[in-house]
Order: sequence, then C-alpha cells, then structure tokens
Amino acid sequence: MRVGVLTGGGDGPGLNAVIRAVTKSLIRHCNAQVVGIEEGFAGLMDGRVRQLDWRAVSGLIHLGGTVLGTSNRRNPLLEGEEGAQRVIESARALGLDAVVAVGGDGTMAIAQALWQRGLAMVGVPKTIDNDIVGCERSFGFDTAVAIATEALERLQTTGQAHGRVMLLETMGRDAGWIALESGIAAAADVILLPEIPYDIEAVAAVCRERESRQRFTVISVAEGARARGGDVVVQERIEGRDEPVRLGGVAHVLAAQLQSRISSEVRATVLGHVQRGGAPTAFDRVLATRYGNEVAQLVCRGEFGRMVTLQGGELTSVALDAVAQGRRSIPPEHPLLDCARQIGVSLGEPA
Amino acid sequence: MRVGVLTGGGDGPGLNAVIRAVTKSLIRHCNAQVVGIEEGFAGLMDGRVRQLDWRAVSGLIHLGGTVLGTSNRRNPLLEGEEGAQRVIESARALGLDAVVAVGGDGTMAIAQALWQRGLAMVGVPKTIDNDIVGCERSFGFDTAVAIATEALERLQTTGQAHGRVMLLETMGRDAGWIALESGIAAAADVILLPEIPYDIEAVAAVCRERESRQRFTVISVAEGARARGGDVVVQERIEGRDEPVRLGGVAHVLAAQLQSRISSEVRATVLGHVQRGGAPTAFDRVLATRYGNEVAQLVCRGEFGRMVTLQGGELTSVALDAVAQGRRSIPPEHPLLDCARQIGVSLGEPA
Amino acid sequence: MRVGVLTGGGDGPGLNAVIRAVTKSLIRHCNAQVVGIEEGFAGLMDGRVRQLDWRAVSGLIHLGGTVLGTSNRRNPLLEGEEGAQRVIESARALGLDAVVAVGGDGTMAIAQALWQRGLAMVGVPKTIDNDIVGCERSFGFDTAVAIATEALERLQTTGQAHGRVMLLETMGRDAGWIALESGIAAAADVILLPEIPYDIEAVAAVCRERESRQRFTVISVAEGARARGGDVVVQERIEGRDEPVRLGGVAHVLAAQLQSRISSEVRATVLGHVQRGGAPTAFDRVLATRYGNEVAQLVCRGEFGRMVTLQGGELTSVALDAVAQGRRSIPPEHPLLDCARQIGVSLGEPA
Amino acid sequence: MRVGVLTGGGDGPGLNAVIRAVTKSLIRHCNAQVVGIEEGFAGLMDGRVRQLDWRAVSGLIHLGGTVLGTSNRRNPLLEGEEGAQRVIESARALGLDAVVAVGGDGTMAIAQALWQRGLAMVGVPKTIDNDIVGCERSFGFDTAVAIATEALERLQTTGQAHGRVMLLETMGRDAGWIALESGIAAAADVILLPEIPYDIEAVAAVCRERESRQRFTVISVAEGARARGGDVVVQERIEGRDEPVRLGGVAHVLAAQLQSRISSEVRATVLGHVQRGGAPTAFDRVLATRYGNEVAQLVCRGEFGRMVTLQGGELTSVALDAVAQGRRSIPPEHPLLDCARQIGVSLGEPA
Repeated sequence: MRVGVLTGGGDGPGLNAVIRAVTKSLIRHCNAQVVGIEEGFAGLMDGRVRQLDWRAVSGLIHLGGTVLGTSNRRNPLLEGEEGAQRVIESARALGLDAVVAVGGDGTMAIAQALWQRGLAMVGVPKTIDNDIVGCERSFGFDTAVAIATEALERLQTTGQAHGRVMLLETMGRDAGWIALESGIAAAADVILLPEIPYDIEAVAAVCRERESRQRFTVISVAEGARARGGDVVVQERIEGRDEPVRLGGVAHVLAAQLQSRISSEVRATVLGHVQRGGAPTAFDRVLATRYGNEVAQLVCRGEFGRMVTLQGGELTSVALDAVAQGRRSIPPEHPLLDCARQIGVSLGEPA
Repeated sequence: MRVGVLTGGGDGPGLNAVIRAVTKSLIRHCNAQVVGIEEGFAGLMDGRVRQLDWRAVSGLIHLGGTVLGTSNRRNPLLEGEEGAQRVIESARALGLDAVVAVGGDGTMAIAQALWQRGLAMVGVPKTIDNDIVGCERSFGFDTAVAIATEALERLQTTGQAHGRVMLLETMGRDAGWIALESGIAAAADVILLPEIPYDIEAVAAVCRERESRQRFTVISVAEGARARGGDVVVQERIEGRDEPVRLGGVAHVLAAQLQSRISSEVRATVLGHVQRGGAPTAFDRVLATRYGNEVAQLVCRGEFGRMVTLQGGELTSVALDAVAQGRRSIPPEHPLLDCARQIGVSLGEPA
Repeated sequence: MRVGVLTGGGDGPGLNAVIRAVTKSLIRHCNAQVVGIEEGFAGLMDGRVRQLDWRAVSGLIHLGGTVLGTSNRRNPLLEGEEGAQRVIESARALGLDAVVAVGGDGTMAIAQALWQRGLAMVGVPKTIDNDIVGCERSFGFDTAVAIATEALERLQTTGQAHGRVMLLETMGRDAGWIALESGIAAAADVILLPEIPYDIEAVAAVCRERESRQRFTVISVAEGARARGGDVVVQERIEGRDEPVRLGGVAHVLAAQLQSRISSEVRATVLGHVQRGGAPTAFDRVLATRYGNEVAQLVCRGEFGRMVTLQGGELTSVALDAVAQGRRSIPPEHPLLDCARQIGVSLGEPA
Repeated sequence: MRVGVLTGGGDGPGLNAVIRAVTKSLIRHCNAQVVGIEEGFAGLMDGRVRQLDWRAVSGLIHLGGTVLGTSNRRNPLLEGEEGAQRVIESARALGLDAVVAVGGDGTMAIAQALWQRGLAMVGVPKTIDNDIVGCERSFGFDTAVAIATEALERLQTTGQAHGRVMLLETMGRDAGWIALESGIAAAADVILLPEIPYDIEAVAAVCRERESRQRFTVISVAEGARARGGDVVVQERIEGRDEPVRLGGVAHVLAAQLQSRISSEVRATVLGHVQRGGAPTAFDRVLATRYGNEVAQLVCRGEFGRMVTLQGGELTSVALDAVAQGRRSIPPEHPLLDCARQIGVSLGEPA
C-alpha cells in the first residue's frame, strides 16, 4: 500500500506532529509506504513527492510549520473538471492508493471532490481558529490561545504602568474562539467577537469606568469583530492630503473609535502571523498525534471519504461531505460566553 | 447568602483561578457574600476566614498555589463524629449558608460526610494527576503535562549529546496520565505507567537497540510504575557498610535495573514539586474559570451535595457520593495507549 | 532619612525589580523611610505618594510594568522655571531628603535640572532599546530581545511552510540593538538597523536568492531603519480614492517595497507594545536588582547628581550631566555587526 | 585550510550555536573546509569526522545538546604520551590544519597539551557553572539560570500553599553562580553556596522567623554547598536495618538537618540534568555565536594555542596555558553577594 500525505491551506502548530504520527502509524499498522507531497494539491498535481520513513519524520513533533510546505495559491477545483482530473492522474502516476489531506475547510472541499471522482481520500481538520464544522477542537488552537494569552498579559502590565487601554487583535474572521479563550485566560476586561456585534458606547463605558479605579483596560478583539449597526468606517486625516482615508483592521478602527470617546490613551497591537508559527503546546502535540494516528487507522481499514474529528472528547470520523461549508462560530448559548459575563467580562453588549 | 470557599489537599496550578471565578460569579450571579477559608477544613474548624470581594480576587488568574492556603495534615473525619460536628458548628458560627470545597478525592469524601450531616456543600475536583473518578479532565493537569514535556525535551538533548539513557519520574502514584501525555508530547521512547507493569528486559532491549542507532533513549516514568512480577527491590552498597541498602523511588530503582543491563550511562531525574507549582497554562486557566463559574451556579440554584465535573467535553455535576473512592487510572483499552504503541513508543510490555 | 522613588517615561520589564531592590536596600543599608511617588514627576508635583516598606515591595521582582505608574505626558521642565520650582517645593513639603528617578534620557535630563536647583537626585537608566549613552546594558533589554527572538522564530516556521518573506518590526527608533540581537539569536537572514541605511535592491536580492533554495526569508527590522538615499515614500491605492496614500511604519513600507521586487508573498508584523510588557527574564531581574541596590548605596553615601551605570561588566556611576542627550546607537565598528556579517546575515548593505 | 571542530566534556545549551557560528565564519572568512569531529577527543583519536558545510549547520542555533556528540569518558592524556601522539597522528591523517575544541577546563588542558606537542589548537570555554578561570561569562550559564529561576518560582507557589520550606539544588560543585543568580532572580529567601559554608542554625532561624509571617521559605542551594565546621554527615534509619544510613546530596542532607529544627515540612528537589538541556536563551545564542565567530577569526589569523574569552564585556583571547586549573568561584567581595545581603537574602552566615 502506498499512501500520500499533504498539508493544505494556512499553516498552524501541530502539522508536523500529524505528519509524523500518520507516517509512523501507517508504517507500523499496515506496513504502508508513505510519501510526502510537497505544497499541498499543487504539489500533487505536479508530482512533487518524497519518501517519508521512520527516520524522515523523527524529531518533527515540536516543529512549527510543515516540512511538506503548503500552498493556498493553487486550488485544482478552480481549474474546473480538468484540474481535478489532472490531480487524479498524477496520484495514479505516483502509484498512490490513498491520500491523506491535512487542512481547513477549503482543503476538505477539494478532498471531497476528489473522493467523488474516485481518489481514495481521508482528511484531518486543521484550523487554528477552531472553526471547522463538526470538529470540537482542532490542533493548533491551543497554541494560538497560549500565544495570544501571553501577549495579552504583556500588554496588561504596560497598560497598567501607563493607564492605557490596550487592544490585541487576534485571528478569527468568522469565529472568535481565540479571542474568547485567550481573553478569559488573560483576564481581559473586554472581549469582542464576530458573533456578537459590539456597541462602541458600551465598550467606551467600560474603559471610562475602569479609568478611575484600575486605570487601565485590556481588550481582546477577534479580527472579524464588527460594530453593532453595520460596518463602521473610520477615517483618518493623512498629512498633505485633503480628504481623510479609511483605516483597515478592526483593532485600529476600534482604537480610533475609542480614542474619541475616552481620555486614556489607546494602543492597538495586531498579533498576526506570530500566533500561527512556532512549537505547538504539549496539548496540541498530543492532539495532533492522536489525529494522525486515527487517520492512519482509517486508511488501513479502507474507510475513505472521511475526516477524523473530535466529538465529546473522543476521536471519531465523519463523512467528508458532512463537513458543512460554513464555519463553526460560537453559538449564542455557548457556556463560555455566559461564563465570561459572570466573571465580569464585557462582551461589548449594550448595557 | 454567605458562602465559604476552601482549598484542600495538595495544591495545583489553577486553584487561584477557581477561587477568583467562584467569587466573582457568586457575587454577580446571586449577590452572595463570599469568605475565603484558610488552610482547608482545618481553617474551617478554627473559624479562620477572610472576606473575598471583587478586588481581593483580582489578578489571581495566573498565580500558582492557593492564596487561601491548604492543609493535608488535618482531616476532621479522622477526629470522628466529634470532628465533623465541630466543623459544622464552626460553619454555622461563621454564618455560612454553603461551602465550596476545591480538592481531591479526600476533600470530596469530607465534603460528602459534611453534606450528609446537614452542611450545604459543593465540590470542585482538583488533581494534577487527572485521576478523580467521574472527571474527564481536571485543571492543573495540562500545566503538569506541559512542565513534564519541557523537562523531557531538555533531557533529550543532553541524552543525545552524551549517548545516555535519560529517565524522568513524574507524578502519578495510581494513574499514569502525566507520564503518558508528556511522554507522547515529548517523543519519549519508553513510557512506564502504574497501569502496565513493565518488563525490565523489554525496556533494556529498547535502550540497547537505540544505542547503536540514535545513541540515546528517553524514558517517561510515572512514580507509581512498577516492574512486572511484583515489587523489585534494588539494593546498593553504601561506602563503609557491609550490607546493601534498598533504594527508594521508581526512577532510581529503574536506573539501577537498567544500568546493569546496558552499556550506556543511565541518568534519573525526579521532577517532584516543580510540576505542581507556578502559573497555569491558558488551557487550565479557562478550565478552572469554567469550573469556578459552574460551581457558583450550583450554589445559586441551591443544588448542594454535588461536585462539578467534565464529561464529554461539557461541564455538568455528579452527586458527591458518586465520586468513587478509587482512582481514575488509564483503562487498558484507552485509545491513547494504542496511539502510543502505533507511533513506536514502548510501554515496557514484553515483546 | 526619607527617600522618594519614581519611574518616568515608557515602561519596561524590570522596573518593579528596581523599585523592590532600592526600597529593601535603603531600609536595610541606611534605615531610610521610602515613599513611592505615583506616575513620575507629575505625581511628585502633585504630592501623590505612598509608603513603601518591606512588605509593600514583596513579590514584585517578576512583575512587568511599574506599580508606581509612569507618565510621559507631563514634563515639569516644559512648564519652565516655575515647573521645576513646583517640583522642588513639593518634594520639600513631602519631607524628601532625596529622590531616586528611574527612567530614560528624558527622565535623566529632568533629574539633572532638579539636581542643579538643589534637589538631591540620583538616577537609574531605563531603556529597553539599550540606547542610553554611557550605559552598556540596561535592564529590560534582555527581555525585549527574548520576546522578539521568540516572535521571529514563530514567523520563521510559518514563512517556511508558505515560502514567504516574513518581516518583524521591533522597537528601536535611533538604535537597532533589539533588532540586531534578536535577529542573530533567531537566525534571521536579514537585519535592518537605523545605523545602516538599507539598499532595497540588496534586500530583494537576498530574498530572491533564498526563494530558490530555502524558499523563505526572515527579516528583523528596527522601527527606525530607513532606506539608503533618503526617505522612501511608499504609496498605496485605497479603494474608492483617486490618489494613492502614503503608508506608515517601516515594516509595511519595506513589505511594499519588497513585494514589487520579488515573487514570494511578503508579510509584515509589528511587535509593538508586546515587547515591553510582562515578566522580565532572569537576567534582567538580576541586573535590575543590582541597579536598585547600587543606587541605594549612592543615596546612603550622599553621592547625589549621579546615575548608576554598567561599564565593562561592572556597576559604577556617572554624573547626571555626563549623560549625553544623544542615543547610544550601534557604532559602525561594533563587533556584533561584523559577527552578523561573518555568519551570513545581510545588513542590507549594497553588494 | 582544513579545520576540525569538537565538543568535549559535559554538554550545555549553546554548543550547537557555537558549532554553527564557527563553521559559517571559517567558511566565509578564510574559505576553510570544516569537519565536525564526533564525541570529542575520543572521536579525533578514532578519526570519526563528517563534513560541516553551510547547510549542515543550518537550523542549529536553538538546539540544545551538541550534534557532534561529546564524551567525558575518554581523555587521551590519561593514556600517557602515547595517547597524545595518537591524537596528533589522527589529526594529521585527517588532514587537519587546526582543531577548535569547545569544552570545559578538562578539554582546555588537553588542548594545551596537544598544542605543546605541535597540533594547532584553539579553545572555546564551555561551562554552565560559569566557573572557568579568566572567562567572565560562558554561554549556557544564562540558560541554566533561567531554568533554575523558573523552577524556584514554581516551588515558591507550592511552598506558599502548604506553608513549607522548599529547597532547590542546582549545579555548581565548586562555584555557586547558578544558585546565586537564580536565587536572586526568583526572590529566594536563602542562598547557599560552596564559597560560604552555611551555619545550619542560621538557616533554621530564617525558616522559623518566616513560618510565623509568610509561612514558607525558598532556599536555592548549590550542589557544592556544605555546612560550616566541616562535612556534616546525615544519617537516616532504613526500615528493617539496625544502623542508620548516610544520605547523599546536599539538598537531602540539608532537608534532614532543617526538618529536625523546624516545624514546617521541608521538601527538596534536585534539578539535575534538566538544567543543562534544551534550547538556549536568546542571550546565550548571541554569546555562543560571538564566541564561535571569534574563535574562527583566531584560526584565520593563525593565532593558535589560545582560548577565546569574555573580559570586561568584550571578547578577547588568552593563552591556553593561562587557563588556570582551578575554578572561578565567587570571590568573597563580589558585589552580587553584598547585593543579595542588602535585599534581605540570607547566605547562611551566622547572625
């Protein structure tokens, strides 16, 4: 049996731990030959592969990124039926009996399309945003939360020293899991999520109320957060120009909105790519190893067209086409939201 | 409503996060007065309490230990019926309508005994060993795994440099969760657990086989691990004495057993108390906050005689007397055991 | 003897360690009464002080920020002679025999002005940029380098996964110490400093050369770095506007410059305030403690008008007016520059 | 030119950073061929080498241990003149024009002996204990201090929770630098050093005095610390034996001494090998890189028989035979000792 492994979409901590576990498990469990496919589906299309054996994946568990490389620039589906067929032909030419695709919802959609066309595919969900439908907790998320928590804590001390409002923008365009968990873990005063449009006056009120006592306010804001009442356009005057310019990025928009309403200085930081690189936490290493091992079992048992997933704390699998195309955003009744409110965190809701 | 909070038994990362969350939630949710009881049931017996308000618990989320102190020296139940009655009288004298006890199975047994005698008790499970029956994942465990993982990684590099066998003994007298998860996360070569008596010849064989290739071996061993075929007594000659002396501690026993069987040098480290102190991970802060918030809801709803617990990834509660007196050891069919075997980790089982 | 302590200017890791050490040393060494002055010279002007005793400074060594608060908004010198006199009168009203000022060159200039007017002043240099003239190594700098190094490492793995050019902008308007040391420590490929105007073609050439082999490039850039041949103005087209807009911040300017010259994607991150908050490294805690202890000795010996400093690895002191008003930028012949070049780091110099 | 690089003696964080820097600098600076010698002088004797080029040393800067391996088991000098000659012949057979030896004082003594016999040798000092004569600060030491500081902090919180005396034994047989700096950085209450024999009554008095107020005491003790009045022999009764047995290790000896004098529980942890493995701090990476680059300059300039060293904050070199055979212990008048005393740390000196 010859199995290909690829990583697609944005990278995240734990990809290498999955590659290592799937390789070792495939070798040990069903004596498979394993090949690593470079740069996702683009590499599969072009036949760029290399042998993965026990030695090749040794020492990978703690490495960030993906040794296979990834590509979010080339999607075979965007090249129509022809693109899909080229991938399938290439897989056959490489002698692959099955392909393990590790990636986000885009990668899973491609895997499903290929599976429908006869290529034996299985998937492992990857999203540091933790927002793949049907998957309770993806690897990489814990690491992203840990990094964001540390950044919020650092911002808190400098906020305290200067009596400032400190904003940290974390990843999460459609789902605010990172902002929510890191905000709770770092004792943020305000957490703003894509799921709950914020009331700028309510946020300003929290800052003003804290100005007099604790002097500082820490705000954890997901990149997808937006103001209540539709998109707020914030403009800024640029030197030497007549008309104001629109600012981009929620942290800077929010900072400008707040600064006009409170007297403390407001400072915004965008954590950016820092939160998706580097060594995974111990938690994510174990989780990624479990995902990798589980998907290898699927392959060895010949259960294709499925994605490994975590439900109720246990690993299981779902059909690839059951992976809804939406995002797993935070449901309004999620206990963590109420937990945040109970311990006094403002979610930017009107009073 | 006036509610007391105490922490009992050994400490662990996240206790202060629970104290903070339970206090804030009680105040906000049912406008309770909250008092902190010093040094567990001993302090309750003696009436040593202090007011806990919003300000008093501010800034606690990342602190290790417990600001209330704990005591594993005085158990009112060991003083018979009289002891239990003294605690109940003291609670009445302090005007406590309910008591939240955060602790291990010993603390829960006391809570149950007091509840049976009429004191409104609720519990929050605490065990860095992750071995309380009925609780899937306790706070503090993730931090202990993270610390042990880092230590194993450090030992690996020095083992690699010198071509040595490096042993790390972690906590876990009855359950090997810390040794198992940290061993997987740090890519240990051998993991020895209380649940699977080890075959010393099998362990030595792994070391010998690695000597020729990778030169080094990393072994994660739980303090409760023991050799197959009953307790192995290892003795060592002490300078100036005629008879040999028995060694204590599984890491040193195992090191002596191995050293006589292989040519590489063997070095043992006992992580000890380092793994139960210090700042909790972001994961544990969130989990501890959720536990604290949940137990406050129980109190506000008047649901006493119960312990908050995590099942299937969700917080719920069980009756205090449902907390079996045993330990939640790793079941033989637990998927993590097979996962470890699949990726090539030896669990010390005979070949 | 009654001594006031204040922290001025931007905060940095280690300020609380200084406050703790100076307080303990003053109490033990010359039995002084110590008062903490809130929010720098502004607080001294307004008489806002509080008692600092052994207990008050306990547990401060690892805290980021400054428990005294700081202010970079009010400078008594900007209020003319009257401002200086008000500060001196307030110090007398508070019964202060001496004032310890911890801060940057601005704070030292104020301290010198007050000392010339008769107030017994001593100074402790503080700059995470490590750029105070006459001071070899300031506390806080090591922590900033450690944080930037970790961020660069995280960016490296994600750059490697995607084949991208990753830029990290660190603090350092006039001196590039943080960018230089973190760049070396994180094995950055390019380091751009205020001291060496960069040749954009040379930087692009490094990226292009790496594209074919390692696929990714990591660039550590100080906020004060600028292109050779004067200020480069980078403009970007904004949706719905006719004319392009000028971009701010060297990382974004550089990213735009590079993106038009190479085919890999370029991503910029601005580390910002994250690098000045949080717990100091062990190194900075020891250094801050030594500074605090040393300045207390100056006070006890009555040596006023001086600033503690590190020279040749030893603590000593210099006259406050010897603190030149410039910045200690990296001298062209500094061995670390040549060291970087020797190990293959590009400093953006033309080929 | 063909240059060999070897690492000898115990490992420490930063060895790989030196190997990387020396290789890159030799290649770039004098176009040398570089070969890595495996397992120190033993490997040189046996001719076990491998090519080191730019690619081979890429990615090494943050790795703990040494990719070349080390050996403290085979010292050619112990094999007499014949041993030395065999090393020299092997070096000639390998075509080596010079050998860079990275190691402790033992390694430097061998290097000096070989240099005297005509082999072109240069040295880089390595000791996490920071105790090589003539070298102000060796790489690896900062990392060891950071690890010990974190362990002390973790012990502090658990000590605080239980009201215990917590002891941490760190490396330092002849010099107490690690115990001293980590003790100051972690706000230890007592620091015991080889350089200052401790008075057990004075240590017990500190613990007793703290019992009533802070409840806990943290003690940082170097492995080479010993009691005033000569070696204290502590014996313990072993079950089933008539006579008591002598305990080993200063932490356990001290714990037994203290436990008989105070009422709080005493707990001892031996940090062991954990403190010499793993990724170096940013500080140590920069320092190791500088050492590696500097020694490459020596080789390129043909300055043999010398060891690179740090003096007054600057890198320079000393003759190999100037490296005294003793250890650089903490001099009695070292400012850090007085600094510790001033901030209230007990050094175990009699009252």
